[in-house]
Amino acid sequence: MDKEKIILGIDPGTTIMGFGLIRVRNKKMEFMQLNELDLKKYSDHYLKLKLIFERTIELIDTHHPDEIAIEAPFYGKNVQSMLKLGRAQGVAMAAGLSRQIPITEYLPKKIKMAITGNGNASKEQVAKMLQSLLDLKTLPKNLDATDGLAAAVCHFYNSEKVTVGKSYSGWESFVKQNQDKIG
Amino acid sequence: MDKEKIILGIDPGTTIMGFGLIRVRNKKMEFMQLNELDLKKYSDHYLKLKLIFERTIELIDTHHPDEIAIEAPFYGKNVQSMLKLGRAQGVAMAAGLSRQIPITEYLPKKIKMAITGNGNASKEQVAKMLQSLLDLKTLPKNLDATDGLAAAVCHFYNSEKVTVGKSYSGWESFVKQNQDKIG
Repeated sequence: MDKEKIILGIDPGTTIMGFGLIRVRNKKMEFMQLNELDLKKYSDHYLKLKLIFERTIELIDTHHPDEIAIEAPFYGKNVQSMLKLGRAQGVAMAAGLSRQIPITEYLPKKIKMAITGNGNASKEQVAKMLQSLLDLKTLPKNLDATDGLAAAVCHFYNSEKVTVGKSYSGWESFVKQNQDKIG
Repeated sequence: MDKEKIILGIDPGTTIMGFGLIRVRNKKMEFMQLNELDLKKYSDHYLKLKLIFERTIELIDTHHPDEIAIEAPFYGKNVQSMLKLGRAQGVAMAAGLSRQIPITEYLPKKIKMAITGNGNASKEQVAKMLQSLLDLKTLPKNLDATDGLAAAVCHFYNSEKVTVGKSYSGWESFVKQNQDKIG
């Protein structure tokens, strides 16, 4: 990779959206940004979706990422929570799709594995590793905010060495690679 | 209602997106359009989402609807299908949200009830009733295409007489009114 590349990582949820940006230059990562959109304070579901969509568009139009990585759990407690999560993911994806930016999704386990070498690592372990990898001076109080950045870093490893993570270019291949997890 | 109003109805799914448009003038409905976006032929999940988003944007920018009605099932076979459905709904909603158009969602049962008086009506009964209500010359071969138009008609009744359907202004009130259906 000779060209500079910017990766936007997002973890779209209905209570918090964590996001992070890294710049890749000469096969090395540079930290750009780490932040969260707090959605807990809003009770209206459409307002939450609107805020996720608008923030993602704003991030794209401000930083012009070349690629988007999304943390996307594939199973959850019940159908209602999955429908809500699917909608949150959908609006974030629509933002990327509307700007023609390639999206890759990663399971939480894959992200933990790519960063710490352990698919069952704790949030603290992932955050500490991110801090070390990217020379972060501080970590946010709410470690959920680091999930978006973690997705971006996972995507970086995935682009460099295919063995570290797995990219899902489409739902079909995703399903094929996760047969055991699908109910 | 003195002003003319246009309602766009959408049934966003991952195999077909049905959509319809009606114009409301002097408290009367006029048929404008009924169509479907066939997604069965595409296997890539992101391409499907992109097509749903783009078609919805195109419908909005062409017909300038004042309100959007979405058929939104609230439960399904399993968490995987609900995640996929949530994403399809999410991108359609993002299109409406990005154009500042109010969205109201309706359960399939509510739509059938509003149109036929029977929440368990068959697809054929709903289609026949739509044909009669809107003076449709023909019905599409695939009756799934009528679901979007049915949502628009349901929303018309809902705006005129509150007792016929139920509008969900937000997820919270939706959940409150559907406690028995949530797993």
